[in-house]
This record gives sequence, structure tokens and C-alpha cells, in this order.
Amino acid sequence: MNSYGTLFRISTFGESHGPAIGVIIDGCPAGLTIDLNFIQSELDRRKPGQSKITTQRKEDDSFKILSGVFEGKSTGTPIAITIENQDQRSKDYSHIQNTFRPSHADYTYESKYGVRDYRGGGRSSARETAARVAAGAIAKLLLKQVGIEINAYVSQVGELKAPHYTQLDLNKTEDNIIRCPDVSIAEKMISLIDQVRLARDTIGGVVTCVIKNTPVGLGEPVFDKLHAEIGKAMLSINAVKGFEYGSGFDGITLRGSQHNDEFYNDGNKIRTKTNFSGGIQGGISNGEDIYFNVAFKPVATIMKDQPSVDKDGNETIVSGKGRHDPCVVPRAVPIVEAMAALVIADFLLRSKSSKI
Amino acid sequence: MNSYGTLFRISTFGESHGPAIGVIIDGCPAGLTIDLNFIQSELDRRKPGQSKITTQRKEDDSFKILSGVFEGKSTGTPIAITIENQDQRSKDYSHIQNTFRPSHADYTYESKYGVRDYRGGGRSSARETAARVAAGAIAKLLLKQVGIEINAYVSQVGELKAPHYTQLDLNKTEDNIIRCPDVSIAEKMISLIDQVRLARDTIGGVVTCVIKNTPVGLGEPVFDKLHAEIGKAMLSINAVKGFEYGSGFDGITLRGSQHNDEFYNDGNKIRTKTNFSGGIQGGISNGEDIYFNVAFKPVATIMKDQPSVDKDGNETIVSGKGRHDPCVVPRAVPIVEAMAALVIADFLLRSKSSKI
Amino acid sequence: MNSYGTLFRISTFGESHGPAIGVIIDGCPAGLTIDLNFIQSELDRRKPGQSKITTQRKEDDSFKILSGVFEGKSTGTPIAITIENQDQRSKDYSHIQNTFRPSHADYTYESKYGVRDYRGGGRSSARETAARVAAGAIAKLLLKQVGIEINAYVSQVGELKAPHYTQLDLNKTEDNIIRCPDVSIAEKMISLIDQVRLARDTIGGVVTCVIKNTPVGLGEPVFDKLHAEIGKAMLSINAVKGFEYGSGFDGITLRGSQHNDEFYNDGNKIRTKTNFSGGIQGGISNGEDIYFNVAFKPVATIMKDQPSVDKDGNETIVSGKGRHDPCVVPRAVPIVEAMAALVIADFLLRSKSSKI
Amino acid sequence: MNSYGTLFRISTFGESHGPAIGVIIDGCPAGLTIDLNFIQSELDRRKPGQSKITTQRKEDDSFKILSGVFEGKSTGTPIAITIENQDQRSKDYSHIQNTFRPSHADYTYESKYGVRDYRGGGRSSARETAARVAAGAIAKLLLKQVGIEINAYVSQVGELKAPHYTQLDLNKTEDNIIRCPDVSIAEKMISLIDQVRLARDTIGGVVTCVIKNTPVGLGEPVFDKLHAEIGKAMLSINAVKGFEYGSGFDGITLRGSQHNDEFYNDGNKIRTKTNFSGGIQGGISNGEDIYFNVAFKPVATIMKDQPSVDKDGNETIVSGKGRHDPCVVPRAVPIVEAMAALVIADFLLRSKSSKI
Repeated sequence: MNSYGTLFRISTFGESHGPAIGVIIDGCPAGLTIDLNFIQSELDRRKPGQSKITTQRKEDDSFKILSGVFEGKSTGTPIAITIENQDQRSKDYSHIQNTFRPSHADYTYESKYGVRDYRGGGRSSARETAARVAAGAIAKLLLKQVGIEINAYVSQVGELKAPHYTQLDLNKTEDNIIRCPDVSIAEKMISLIDQVRLARDTIGGVVTCVIKNTPVGLGEPVFDKLHAEIGKAMLSINAVKGFEYGSGFDGITLRGSQHNDEFYNDGNKIRTKTNFSGGIQGGISNGEDIYFNVAFKPVATIMKDQPSVDKDGNETIVSGKGRHDPCVVPRAVPIVEAMAALVIADFLLRSKSSKI
Repeated sequence: MNSYGTLFRISTFGESHGPAIGVIIDGCPAGLTIDLNFIQSELDRRKPGQSKITTQRKEDDSFKILSGVFEGKSTGTPIAITIENQDQRSKDYSHIQNTFRPSHADYTYESKYGVRDYRGGGRSSARETAARVAAGAIAKLLLKQVGIEINAYVSQVGELKAPHYTQLDLNKTEDNIIRCPDVSIAEKMISLIDQVRLARDTIGGVVTCVIKNTPVGLGEPVFDKLHAEIGKAMLSINAVKGFEYGSGFDGITLRGSQHNDEFYNDGNKIRTKTNFSGGIQGGISNGEDIYFNVAFKPVATIMKDQPSVDKDGNETIVSGKGRHDPCVVPRAVPIVEAMAALVIADFLLRSKSSKI
Repeated sequence: MNSYGTLFRISTFGESHGPAIGVIIDGCPAGLTIDLNFIQSELDRRKPGQSKITTQRKEDDSFKILSGVFEGKSTGTPIAITIENQDQRSKDYSHIQNTFRPSHADYTYESKYGVRDYRGGGRSSARETAARVAAGAIAKLLLKQVGIEINAYVSQVGELKAPHYTQLDLNKTEDNIIRCPDVSIAEKMISLIDQVRLARDTIGGVVTCVIKNTPVGLGEPVFDKLHAEIGKAMLSINAVKGFEYGSGFDGITLRGSQHNDEFYNDGNKIRTKTNFSGGIQGGISNGEDIYFNVAFKPVATIMKDQPSVDKDGNETIVSGKGRHDPCVVPRAVPIVEAMAALVIADFLLRSKSSKI
Repeated sequence: MNSYGTLFRISTFGESHGPAIGVIIDGCPAGLTIDLNFIQSELDRRKPGQSKITTQRKEDDSFKILSGVFEGKSTGTPIAITIENQDQRSKDYSHIQNTFRPSHADYTYESKYGVRDYRGGGRSSARETAARVAAGAIAKLLLKQVGIEINAYVSQVGELKAPHYTQLDLNKTEDNIIRCPDVSIAEKMISLIDQVRLARDTIGGVVTCVIKNTPVGLGEPVFDKLHAEIGKAMLSINAVKGFEYGSGFDGITLRGSQHNDEFYNDGNKIRTKTNFSGGIQGGISNGEDIYFNVAFKPVATIMKDQPSVDKDGNETIVSGKGRHDPCVVPRAVPIVEAMAALVIADFLLRSKSSKI
């Protein structure tokens, strides 16, 4: 339902136009220093209104911790975080109250639940991901303790693709508003999005994520394989249509003799020469870089009139209004990182009982 | 761990060379007629030795039901199924006992658990999927009661692709040994695999799955979105590297105005004109066809010598022996269907409490 | 951890002296009318300062709903409720900061987590049960829809016992401050507690709970038997030391021929003549009244000096301060009802998939 | 449902007269030496036909391990164990097929599931507990590694009570057929049961369990308190009607000043002078002995005719037949220990992530 994780477990709540959204993190080990500035900085990477290629809607996304932290440290009890909604004033929603916006969740929520909060997407709004980012920030603090680093970036917008991650300097991701570490591709992506925005349209893209310094042994076969859980976590993000790790869909056309990752001994530990496996073998991390791609569809809200139907099945027109993202990927980068951090933190705790 | 599902829940066990593998299905509603022939026919679709393009290893994969079925019907108590391993005779495994086969799970299992059943892959062997197929057969029997149909087929081998599913007759899937409903592509695929096999190599492919007649309302936001759970289920199958649904990775290059699925009223119910959404909106089924692609890497076991290391970190050679699949996709078709059936059955039960 | 339930699931958070406590209810079916006054009235039954035999500490326990309710009805999304702590002003806690109060959770929390919120019990405070009562109120609203009634009352204080529930009018429970429907016993209980309070001591008691109109079929063998889950829920309440249902510990001395509940047909349905089974057979409700007893120990906080040790293992004295309950049972009545309602609501939803 | 535990998790299956019963243990750490003789000896303590005061039915209860153990050690993968039913030959069950035996689960299973395996109790038979004992034996092997000891014994039959456990030598439990370490009470219990048996009746009793050497810190507040989970585990055993730990129901009549357990420093560690807390404070073990009582009702199957109704609601007579236990407690001792071991093993693994 609205919870994720086995030992490091989050439960999120909240609608886009209710009083607040939030999250409970249950299972965070005690004694972790909770860096409030870091949590805020992660939320800021996701918040609307950051740049000309994101929605111009302004929200501060400042958070409150209600429990689970005492004198700056986690206590082992549930950490509850709330983020108030500033946009919740009573606007006029009558134009969308009974209408199903194309490729949104309006129709399915209405059918499944019989009632729905029709103001701005309600629970199905991507606003919900702010809670994930706050929780993910705490997971990242835990992972830092053991040296694990998670870096996502925009690797594709429309047809424009960045080179493979091994050819990029991932420290440059935050240097530009599209969050692509290749400067020249970044510029092209930005101008493409700008163009799409002016055409009152939207476009899709890919976020690539790289996890470094994972210990060998994370992942729980056979159903909770590491990549299966990462995949689920990514696919649970709004607008995601696909997931691949390591060689992914491109691996299909290779021969086994090309695709197999040869083991060698680097003097200190066992490594692989290539990494088509994406750092995971048999569902368990092997210590190499974990990397994966997440495909995002073009945002469904466009600034154009679109034919649709209303609750009674009558034909109607949905007109594009408001302030929306022409492309979701720059703001999706911290969300992908947050979900990755939550998965890895959970498996790190789960791995503690593999052996006697 | 080794369980999947919330209300319709399976737990599998067993190693490839232990006495038996098996599964417990907990939560199957009482009163379902259990068609033993159907379960066997599903297992037969997965079993080795079916055709010249699968491994020539022979296993009957006949099953026993130990509990949960009485006078031909499910009783609501756990249904335990075992499948004996016929290949468990004591062979000489000394050549692989201490060696890590490239792109297998040998190294990660050894590191995670400190001990491992080194005979033929042990728990990480794809043999484990036979238990999934048996359980999936029971899920299919449940879904048939409400008219839901699940059809998977091979849509790609190497570079060879079948047309979009809407242009295929899915009743023809079982007409050929590759399980591709397009006869002429099927022939090309078969001869490609044969060629790869003669080269003592392996190749990857894609299985596409289509689910028809799903009721509106399956899926539980925000983490257990329908496609997120399907994705996890598929990624948990051995050798899977990627998952996409609806427009998938191709949706990236479309504009929102092209990608949005326009609603209309067909007289009886609300439908969409296109189906880039893949039958799922906001994580909940909308009644249109659900369709998705699952990417399989080339099988790691090849009939060639490969350099590797042993447990002590010394260089060694892994030599290809035995009878293995040159391409996993024809046998993966029933596995993909089984996992899809298990996910849908679970959400069908979970959906019963959406509304008062 | 801090969550309870499978389909109707709550997650609580909060420390007694942090900013707020609260709860997320996930899985409440959509369309339920949420009666805010009823929730408040339930919280009022639990709140401190109600009468001379409860703590004189004043807290309003007014709540806010942050999500999951729209236009007065549940939407099927998580219902988040917060209750601010009014007592969180910075008092001087230095006297208990390093001291372990006898029969409290100070020592075990410190040992388990290495850090603890030492202000007034932190997470281990019974204040946490306010969140359960708020969630339980919503469960009760759901149960009312199907006619299920839950009534708890004080059946014992020290040696003073009320008669069996079948000889009581459970509508009279709220007529007195001890919440015992037998007026004359109630008066004796009140004066006993008053006496204990004046002696700066505390005393234990029993809360009995009766659930009427449960449908046949609630409970999920073999581990989630209805009484096993009720038992766990009750034992999870602070200060509870024992649980028994139906004949309970007294059943030990009966013969099978006396204890068996004879079936008969009352013309409309199958009933039992006696009800030693407590409305549950084989872990499943049989439609008769479910009844059980919950034993509460004397409150650990007493107004006397007690020898103890501090964090460093040095001898010290814990002196009784503050405003505490001399007997917990009158305020425990709504907590027992709340937990019972949460269990029954969960099994009601779970029972929907027993049969095809 | 039919699973218990979070990290050390068991799933049981099987009906009394089906081909086999069994259990999967998922989450047992790798590297544990699996002592097959010990597992058998535990099963032998539970098996029928041990002595004149248990049922004379003969079953060997020999087990097979199908997976998860390799070269004598656990591998971290699921351990599947089956126990064949020897009594499954086709007898004539027509006399009970349509009849509801008093205080059995016949009526509730029939109502809940619409179908039931009517042969000898099916899934609701206490035969299911053999699977728990096999799994519990493996949990005990794990606990032995860290020095934890679990000892249960019969402390009451009818009105006959043994002294408090602190006055008994728990090594003497297996010295007599009733499993009570006080020889003179044991003799009285045995002759009472014999008397009851000759009267074709049954009687109830209490099993007390003591867990020694538990580390401080087991238990997960607030819902998964250590005693709440132990309570649930005990209440899930057939015929159990009550559970109390530490002072239990007797604690009700004490004053707080009598009941509080004073802390002291024994030179090495912090201890309590008394142990009314039963080794658990705030739901977390404090290192003192954990002890608790489990109340068993008189067995429902008696050798007398009893009036009842059949499926159609018609009056009928249930006549006592077969070979049944006049008192369940001697055979319940290993079951109580097994469930206690499973709970403690699970919390031992869960406790590994309390702190960073």
C-alpha cells in the first residue's frame, strides 16, 4: 500500500491540496546524526520553481520532524516528518471536479475508490514524492556511514542522449539546471525542453543512477533480488514506464561470450573486468558499480485543449491550465536517488542476518 | 525473501540438485476447482528437453500436491506442491566446487552466505522457476473464473523483432518451438538460435506479455502500483535485465500531446483511443489491455572455456560442459505468464476492500 | 515494529514530550463517513485529568486530520492524524536523565538503542495509546456499518471483582468514573483507588471486553487465529500482563464434558448453548459473543522514593514526582476497545477473500 | 495466515489426513549445523503414543529435509521439512462428514471456507503443531549458539499446581510422563489424568515456560513487544485459552510499591532484585529470566455421546470414538518451547539493526 521496505520502512501520506504530506520512517537504527540542512537541501533539489525548465509554481517544502530524533540523533523510534502544503487555499476546481484528464489517475481513482480528492491530483500527484525525498535523505545519511554513494543524473531527453556513465564526471551533475554532467549535451537538452515548453507540450527522458561502494552481499533471493526491489522502487515513481540495469535491453543482442563478466583478482579482492551485470549477480550485489536507467514518459498535463469524458460518460474538453513541468527528469533526479537509498538501506539492514 | 504476494502468497523452496523443489500457496480462496492436468501442461511448457533449441536435459517435472486440496477443490488452507529432482544423483562437481562461473551467482552466494550448494547452481538455478509455474497455474485457474486472460510470447531474439502485439494472433504462440506467433519471424529466430548453439554460444531476447479483461481498479498506490509489482515480479526471474510497460522506453521520445490516451465513451464504458498507458494509470488498471516487455540476457553458461578465479582468488579456467539452453526465452514464456498471474491474482483479492 | 494490521493497518509515531504524536491508517476502505466528534469523544475517554481517580495532568488531546479524508469521507488513501503534545515545554529532566526508574522501560530502551528520549518516558510512555484510540475510533465507525459493537469495562480492581458480563448492563459503563457497570462494585473500586492514591501507591486491575454481532468466519488460521491477534493487540498495550478469552484460565479445572459448547439450531442459525469458547473456535469467530479479560499491573510510577541505579551502575534514589494515575484501568477501557476494533476491522477486510 | 515471523519466518502446511504436513523455514542464517537427531528427538517428545496418559494412536513423525541444508549446514536458503501422515488411509468418515463436533473447528471452517477436509480435523488438527516443533528445533539450535535456553514444563493439571519455577529443578522435566519437575505433584497429576481418562472425559492444564540467558534488547515496541509476540505465538497453539507473563493475573492485587522490580548492580551488570516483570520491560528483554504461563482447555474430543447439529441444521448425536488425549499438556510442552524458540530467534535477528 503506502509503505515500502522491510526493516528500514517508510509509510507516506498526504494529498497535494490537503493540509500536509509526510512520511514515517520506521526502523532507522538509533544513533544516526540527523543533518537537518542535508534533508532540506535534498528537498530543494526536488522542489518546484527551481529554474526556467521546471514548473514556476512556488513551494518551499520546508519540513518538520515530529518524533524519533532527540538531541540531534535518531533514537530507533519512528521518525515522523511533515511538509505543509502551501498551495491548499480554496481555489475553484469545478472545471476538473467531474472530468477525467487524459493519462492521469483521475478515472482509475474514481473507479477504484468511488470518491477522490479532485484538487490537483490528490494522492496521485507527484507532490507525494517530496515525502520520499525527505525519507531518502535520512537513508543517505545512514549509507554515508558505510561509504555508499548514490548519484543520479539526466542521461536522456527525447532523442538526446548523454554518453555512458563511465565516461562522465558525476560531480558535475548539479552544475546545470537539467542535471546532466555532460555540459554540451546538457545545453542541448535545456534548449529542447524550452522549445517543447513554448509549444505548450511536454517530453520524456531517462534518469540514470549509479551506486558506488556497495558491499558484496546485498539482495535477498529469490523474489527480493536487489535489482527487483530497485526496479519496483523506481517503477513506483510517478510517470516511470521502464527500468533496466546493467546491460539492460541492449544486452539482448549480445552473445553470452561477449556479455559474461570475467572474474579476476585485483590483489585485494575479486572483481569483474566488464560490468554488464550492473553490479548484481543472482540478485545479490557483487561489489561492482550498480547502475540502472529509469524511463519517464512525457508529463500528462499539457497546455492544450484535449477531448475527454466526464464522470457521467459525456464528452467534454480538458483545457491546459496552471504551471506544470515541460519535462519531469531534472526534478526526478533526487527522487530516483532517494528511492535507491531507501532500497539499499533496507537491504543493508536485512543483510545483517545472512550468516551466523 | 522467498515469498511473494500479500493475500495470494507463494513461498518457494529447493535447490536444483537437492531432493525436491516446491511451493506453498497461501491465501488461495476456497472452492476453486484445481485442474491437475492444467498444472502439468503449464509445467510441460517450461520443462527442459522440449525441442532442439532448448537444453537436451530431460526432466519430467511431475508434481505432487501435499495439502490444501480436498475432493478436487481448494479448501482455503495452504496448497503445498513438490516437484522431485530427477537429476540429483551424485555426480562429480569437484570441477566447479571452488570456482566462480562468470556472470553466475556463485561468487555472490559464497560471499553472502559463506557456504553454498555448488551442484548446478543450487538455489540460484532457474530450476526454481518450476515452482513458480506450478503456483502460477493455480493463479491462472482463479483468474479464469473472472475472465482474465494472460498471454506471453517471444517478441525478440537478438536483433530479430516481432511486430507489435496488436498485429499478432496470440492464439498461435504455441504453434512453434520458439513461441512467437508470427510464423516467418519465428522461423528466423529458430535458425538464429540454432546458429548460436552450434557456435557454442548463447543469445538474449524479449518476452512480451498481454493481459486482457482485467477489471478497472487493480493496483495499490503509491508503492504497490500495479506495474511496479509486475515489474518486480518479472525482474525476480533469472536472467531478466529490464522491464517496460505500455510505451516503455520508446515513450521517451514522444510529446505529451502524442502520448496522452484520449478518453471516450464506447456506449458501455469509458475507454481510451490509444493505449500508451499500457492499461495502467496512476498505478491502477483502467480496463484496457495491460502489456509489457521483459528483457532476458544471453544465458551465462556457454560451451566455451572462460578464464575466472576460484574461492582462494587464484586464476582458473571454467570449461563449458553439460546441456544448457542457447536462449532462454522460449522456456521463459510460461514463467512470465505465471508471475503475471500471481501478481494479478494478488491484486484481485486486495481490491476487494477498496470501498465500503 | 510500530505498525499493526494487514489490510486495515496503522503506524503510530511520537514521544510523550516531542512536538506531537500521531498515526497513519492505511487500508481504510473509501466512502466511510468520518465523524470527527466521535473521534474526539473517544480521545476524551482516554485523556488525563478526567476525574479524581486519574492523573490530574491536563491535556486536551485535540487532533488534526492531515490526509485521507475529503468532503467528510475516507478516500481510500492513508488517513494521517496528529495530536500535539501540550506538555512538551522544556522542564528540568536532569533528575531522571541518567536514572533507571524501576519497572519502567528506561533501562531496556537505553540498552537496546544506546540513546533515549528521557523526558517522561519518551516512546514508551502510555501517551502513545492516544494515537491508537484515534485510529480505533475510525475502525469502530467501519464496524458500525456492519452492526458490530465493542464494549469494554473495568471488571476488577485489586481483589474487587464485578460479576460475569452476562449479568451486567453494558450501557451503564460510562455512568461512573471507574467505568464499571455494576454500581455498587464501582463505588467500592473508586474508594479503593482513592485509598491507594492517598497512600502514594498504585494498584492493578482487569478490563473485560465484549464484542457482539461479529459475523461467523473472522480469523485466519493457523498463526493469525482471531484470539491470537486479539491477544497480541492487548498485550501490546502498556502495563498489560495477561490475556484470556472465553473460559480462560478458569477453564483449566473443568472437564471436557462440562466445557464443550453444545450446538443447537435456534430456527434461524446455528448457535451454542454455552459459550466457554468465547465466540471463537479453531481461531475463527462462530457468531457468539467474543469476550476476553486483560490484566493490568499496578502503575510503575509511585509517589515514593525507590532505590535504583543510574547509567553508570551507581546506586541512586528515584523519587516519585508529578501527576500520575493510581490505577490505569478506567483510562484503559477505551484503549482496549480501540485495539479490539482495529483487530476486528482488519479481519473483516481479510475475510473477504476466503471463498471464490 | 500460515506464516509466522519477520526475519526467521516459518510457513506451515498440511492436513491431518492428507499425504503430508510440513514447514518452510525462511531466514535461518547460513552456517548453522543442523543436528538431525535433535530435530527427531524434539518431534518424539510431541508424538502421540508416548505413554498411557497420551493418545494411543501411533505415528512415527519421521521427517525429511528437502532443501536449505548442504553438507550438514544451513545455506541461508529456505529449509523445507515434510512429515508424512501415516494415518491417511481411507477410513470411513461418513459419521462426521456432515456433523459439527462441539467445541471443534468444524462449524467455523465450514462457514468460512464453504468446504472442509472433514477427515479428523483437517487443517485445524493439532497434528499441524508437529511442523512447528520441527521448525522450533532449528530455532533452538540457533539459540544454543548464543547460550539461550528454553525450558517448559507442566505446572498445573486441573486444580493440581506445581510450585513457582524458581523452586524447581527444570532438568527433571523429562523424568516423568507428565513432564512436571516436581515428582510428587507429577504423580498426582498422572493419576488425576488417568482417572479422567477412565471416565471417558478430558481435563485442562497449564504449561509454564522459562527462557534463560536472553540478551538485553530483544523486542520491538510498540506493537511487537516481546511478550505480545510470545503471547500471540502461544495463543496460536490449539486449545490455548490464556497467556500471562511475569506476575500475570496475580499482579493485579499487588501495590506498585510491592510489584516494582528494584534495580541493583551485581558488579558485572544491572539486575533486578525481584522479577515480577518476567524479564521484559517496555516490551524489551532486560536480561532476567523470561517466564510465562499458557492455559490449555480440556480437549474437546471426549469418549461420550454429545448432542449436536449437522450441516443442514438438524439435531444429531456426536459419539466419542478413536484414540485421543485425555489431557493435552504433556505433549504441549515441546510445542510451547518450539513457539518460544521461534519468537526469540526472530527477535534475535531483528535486534541486529537497533543501533548503527
